[in-house]
Amino acid sequence: MDRIPILKMGDLLLVTIQVDMHDRLAMALQDDLTGRIVKDKARGVLIDISALDIVDSFIGRMISNTAAMARILDARTVLVGMQPAVAITLVELGLTLHGVRTALNVEQGVKLLRQQND
Amino acid sequence: MDRIPILKMGDLLLVTIQVDMHDRLAMALQDDLTGRIVKDKARGVLIDISALDIVDSFIGRMISNTAAMARILDARTVLVGMQPAVAITLVELGLTLHGVRTALNVEQGVKLLRQQND
Repeated sequence: MDRIPILKMGDLLLVTIQVDMHDRLAMALQDDLTGRIVKDKARGVLIDISALDIVDSFIGRMISNTAAMARILDARTVLVGMQPAVAITLVELGLTLHGVRTALNVEQGVKLLRQQND
Repeated sequence: MDRIPILKMGDLLLVTIQVDMHDRLAMALQDDLTGRIVKDKARGVLIDISALDIVDSFIGRMISNTAAMARILDARTVLVGMQPAVAITLVELGLTLHGVRTALNVEQGVKLLRQQND
């Protein structure tokens, strides 16, 4: 497992994070995603973390950085599928996902991105 | 990692397989997926295997079985994102994905499912 797949849905890209992120995987994801935003002319990125039980500061920072990169390339990022326990932990640890909007699930995330782009 | 996330997109469900399947994970996926088909009244299932470099007979059978279960519940299954090397290996090994339709990517898969349901 050396790459996280990026799925294209119209002008949106969907990334499902299922495995523990480590440095190299995070770097590869950012490389791939920025490349795909340009190549596919994507206007939005959905990052699904419904499979993650834990979001630590490393993953949080990785998500924030990825969103910042996407933003520079004119694509908005929405984080979807966060588990309740993850939301609790994020607040308790004082971690903020700077510059990242969230939605309950992929459908809501798509709706949010469509509204912004209209 | 004990669950593969299932994403809902309209009346379709999307499963992205990123990790090596083992018995328990495959069983959990089939349980979850059949449950979600009923709960969400899904008409189609997209299984993305773009992250898989290898599809062996175990994964092949798991995909076929999952598609058969979905079919009984009145949902069609489309396998998307197969890597060229995987297609070569499947044919060389004589593995057939019985009852499973394939599409190049998620977008094409969605189109295929929409046509069938019209």
